[in-house]
Amino acid sequence: MKKNLIVGQSGGPTAVINSSLYGVISEAFQSSDTIDNIYGMENGIEGFLKGSIIDITHKISNEELEAIKTTPGAYLGSCRYKLPEDLEDEVYSNLFTAFEKLNIGYFLYIGGNDSMDTVSKLARYANSINSTIRIIGIPKTIDNDLVHTDHTPGYGSAAKFVAYSVREIALDASIYDTKSVTIVEIMGRNAGWLTAASVLARKHENDNPVLIYLPETDFNKEAFISQLNQHLEVTNNLVVCVSEGLHDASGNFVCENETCTEVDNFGHKMLNGCGKYLENLVKNHLNIKVRSIELNVTQRCSSALLSLTDLSEAAIAGKTGVKAALNGATGQMVAFKRISDTPYQLTYELVDVNEICNQEKRIPLEWITKQGTDVSNDFISYVQPLIQGNISVSLEDGLPVFAYRK
Amino acid sequence: MKKNLIVGQSGGPTAVINSSLYGVISEAFQSSDTIDNIYGMENGIEGFLKGSIIDITHKISNEELEAIKTTPGAYLGSCRYKLPEDLEDEVYSNLFTAFEKLNIGYFLYIGGNDSMDTVSKLARYANSINSTIRIIGIPKTIDNDLVHTDHTPGYGSAAKFVAYSVREIALDASIYDTKSVTIVEIMGRNAGWLTAASVLARKHENDNPVLIYLPETDFNKEAFISQLNQHLEVTNNLVVCVSEGLHDASGNFVCENETCTEVDNFGHKMLNGCGKYLENLVKNHLNIKVRSIELNVTQRCSSALLSLTDLSEAAIAGKTGVKAALNGATGQMVAFKRISDTPYQLTYELVDVNEICNQEKRIPLEWITKQGTDVSNDFISYVQPLIQGNISVSLEDGLPVFAYRK
Repeated sequence: MKKNLIVGQSGGPTAVINSSLYGVISEAFQSSDTIDNIYGMENGIEGFLKGSIIDITHKISNEELEAIKTTPGAYLGSCRYKLPEDLEDEVYSNLFTAFEKLNIGYFLYIGGNDSMDTVSKLARYANSINSTIRIIGIPKTIDNDLVHTDHTPGYGSAAKFVAYSVREIALDASIYDTKSVTIVEIMGRNAGWLTAASVLARKHENDNPVLIYLPETDFNKEAFISQLNQHLEVTNNLVVCVSEGLHDASGNFVCENETCTEVDNFGHKMLNGCGKYLENLVKNHLNIKVRSIELNVTQRCSSALLSLTDLSEAAIAGKTGVKAALNGATGQMVAFKRISDTPYQLTYELVDVNEICNQEKRIPLEWITKQGTDVSNDFISYVQPLIQGNISVSLEDGLPVFAYRK
Repeated sequence: MKKNLIVGQSGGPTAVINSSLYGVISEAFQSSDTIDNIYGMENGIEGFLKGSIIDITHKISNEELEAIKTTPGAYLGSCRYKLPEDLEDEVYSNLFTAFEKLNIGYFLYIGGNDSMDTVSKLARYANSINSTIRIIGIPKTIDNDLVHTDHTPGYGSAAKFVAYSVREIALDASIYDTKSVTIVEIMGRNAGWLTAASVLARKHENDNPVLIYLPETDFNKEAFISQLNQHLEVTNNLVVCVSEGLHDASGNFVCENETCTEVDNFGHKMLNGCGKYLENLVKNHLNIKVRSIELNVTQRCSSALLSLTDLSEAAIAGKTGVKAALNGATGQMVAFKRISDTPYQLTYELVDVNEICNQEKRIPLEWITKQGTDVSNDFISYVQPLIQGNISVSLEDGLPVFAYRK
């Protein structure tokens, strides 16, 4: 008997989370001998609990599907909803009753480590009631912090945006014949993958960004000022890249804004103001021009700087997830395994989602230079393939044409 | 007798100030029957006073010239240097002695209203000593605030970046099924041209950005909160675009940071923190998620979102300036005269630089809606042609290849 497939998106958006959605939907369309209807959860599992679903099979045309592939954000809407730890909670029986009503056989969830927590719980509950619904996770996060996968969809495009923008900012910052410091604050609470990608903007030794600070190491204000002074002897206009999650040796975040102590639904601290804080620090210690730039959400939603590699892998991850579900896999996440850097080669595999959820992969310390101010060539070899290739998004009157949920 | 040409750049950088430099240099190369050597001032008139010049004729290859065309920043370096008001000051005789030594016949200066002040003073001094050096200004500013020209090179590309990014930010901000306000702070101290361009991101009524606040009108905090509340009844996730130079009816800037009172060399207040201030204001008045995004320098140095129209016009402005100088013009700035919106047609003319310098063109009040929260269709017809057409910048390993002064 044919079953239906349901797909949802969860957590923060990326430039290619919809490419994975495209992958799921197009693979499901191609599996019409096994899959009957395709449903989408609106606003993830939280929206599904409220009954918000859309009939993708009948509502999304092939043309729309193509536009979805290059649309940033989360086409289906997203949520930051944590399912109860207690699998006896009635929310689970409610969910599975609803799945049954919809004749769901395949549940695909695109998200980061918090979303994999949802996948894990649903898979464990399904197992406990002997449900045959296959529950599969598709990775997604610009933070690149999922374990057991070489990297995550969304990271490559964000990394490209960071490197590209930092190279442009360095040009912008270097036009005057005066000394200056420009601090670029880049996303990353606990893992510095995205900030580290700024190294690609550098073309030669002593070129900008001259200093890169990551949350994998402790940040020391005195050392920072002294490192700036050292570099100012060689370079007039310094560009310094910092992760939003910089912290001192006691684990206190480097930020001045009271919002840095706000906490989201998953208990993560929400950071704000590290760049602005450092701007003021430099202003008070060095009598030179200083500016801070927060790349902000543009780094995760830019469609002008999509990495073709990232976008393609995101789509294949979605397709691979559907194939895995059809083959009987459940409680697994699609993961990337790198075969080689040069030429860049990748295979796709499945990993037990319980080993992934609620964990964070950080940059290996051996990829960070001793002073904690730079990354190694090993990191460059790692990240370079991920930003390759370009996509031309359809334009109308000079602006991008995106897909919007009706 | 053949004369030499010298060209300089001054003021803040744009994405196409180097396209104008390309225009000047390529036209000068083509005028080798009249122009002997081409020199560049490093860091504008300030650098020239220190003797920093480069021999463009012998140092810049055709290949480098092509790369200059699409390189953001200011290839020759820039300055924010104000020449003395007193034309009897010895700086003028020093300058013209140096010009004479270099056999300069043509002086081209690419910049905004402050730089046109330099052009005006040099032209007046040249006149007072019966010098035959022709002094010509090429317009440049993302602020689009020069009078007597339909628009300025640099504005179109920055406007495209703003509209493009705001459309993406709106997608990013709309993924959760909760109410939120996203405040986008856009450059513009006294003129709202760039902020107003965010209207192009809007696809239909009530679409984001729902509110646009410009420095041409007075900002009222109570009215702002009430306008947000009105829109939140219709739309869950509001994107609001604000100019950095928002001020209240008493003329006080809307910002919280002490740097908003800093003053640059020309006596302009340097603003900071309007978006962050409004973020906190909304946080305190409405119990919903709020975020502020400062587009910052990326809006003026993005090469991924160059407008072909802007870039071409910038280059033609440079060429036109050289031709004008060769034809005997001096003390003039190249200006744009629009013939029609549809089809978009433009001619180039010369305007007395004395009528341009130290003035600011603001958005006509009839192009701003009555409540001061939006712009009219007349503005849309004005700005739309300026963002059209795309450029592909050369890439290497996924990142742009720019030209750098040796």
